[in-house]
Amino acid sequence: MEALNKQLDFIIELDRLKGIYRQALVKSDKNRFENSAEHSWHISLTAEILQEYAVEKVNIARVMSMLLIHDIVEIDAGDMFAFSDKQALAEQQEKEIAAATRIFGLLPEQQFQAFNALWLEFEKAETVDARFAKAMDSVLPFLQNIKNEGGSWVKHKVKKSQVIKRNSFLEGLAPQLWLYVCQQIDNAVVQGWLLDE
Amino acid sequence: MEALNKQLDFIIELDRLKGIYRQALVKSDKNRFENSAEHSWHISLTAEILQEYAVEKVNIARVMSMLLIHDIVEIDAGDMFAFSDKQALAEQQEKEIAAATRIFGLLPEQQFQAFNALWLEFEKAETVDARFAKAMDSVLPFLQNIKNEGGSWVKHKVKKSQVIKRNSFLEGLAPQLWLYVCQQIDNAVVQGWLLDE
Repeated sequence: MEALNKQLDFIIELDRLKGIYRQALVKSDKNRFENSAEHSWHISLTAEILQEYAVEKVNIARVMSMLLIHDIVEIDAGDMFAFSDKQALAEQQEKEIAAATRIFGLLPEQQFQAFNALWLEFEKAETVDARFAKAMDSVLPFLQNIKNEGGSWVKHKVKKSQVIKRNSFLEGLAPQLWLYVCQQIDNAVVQGWLLDE
Repeated sequence: MEALNKQLDFIIELDRLKGIYRQALVKSDKNRFENSAEHSWHISLTAEILQEYAVEKVNIARVMSMLLIHDIVEIDAGDMFAFSDKQALAEQQEKEIAAATRIFGLLPEQQFQAFNALWLEFEKAETVDARFAKAMDSVLPFLQNIKNEGGSWVKHKVKKSQVIKRNSFLEGLAPQLWLYVCQQIDNAVVQGWLLDE
């Protein structure tokens, strides 16, 4: 039962991601902050639904697993707003690597290696699967802000150029989604939700 | 863009599952109630981690998709406590079928059919994939109650026999997990978390 006990400890540890809150708001639940567990659920399904827009073939099962685990490191490292400065993002990265070792390390060796490798692949964003997963991780908050009158963009005075840069993965990966995003960005500027600089 | 607009409407509609609350408590977040979106995330990962205990081969990608969507119908139908009476459960089932038609029906035809069929497969619990998914959907709340001094069992005066029945899928599917569950049920009775009737 040793392996099972490790796996159950990991499963119980996952509960803590439900207490890590992001900048995004849940419009349908009194505009409270969104937590990283429900966000992970939402983008895994987003990837499944939008997979047909990827120009290159993605392994959707891998992408979905990647998205289900991509934020687990926040249990130790916390969530960081996507448009933070470079220094803060670099410090965050170090914390997340240590977190991956501790948390995935609760699992039996083989699963630890598999999850850690999948998480690192996501972070590096070099493979098609990881790039598509990353694209989903920026396109969903994008949609949420669009549907929430600018949401966290307004609060944090985010610039049009930052949002373009963050979603630019889409241009080569999924041109039809990229076209949609560009149109919506223009509209967001007109609405005053994004700064035009 | 018509298909894309339908898909984006569905993705935004999913947000509402974050406002559907269950009986389970999130111990790591001030013992608030758990919502069905974060629960869906948690059991999809639970299935991935525990797949090796299934005696028959499961298609884990299908199981995970099934678990990610299994509660979406609650957006319209609400959540029902697992140990409710038969009449209430039958009424709930009718509401859920209508909900599946409306919500999955937001998607383009082909995706609507695929999601609806996958959800129905889960509900019927006749295939190995669906039975394993159902088993995960009862084993995770089980673990949460064990780790939370009886949790919703205590509040609702749940009987040992009800918990055995609810988890009995495991006996043939994953005997090692079944053994663990039986041991923990005995302990839960000793602790006074379950009624021994």
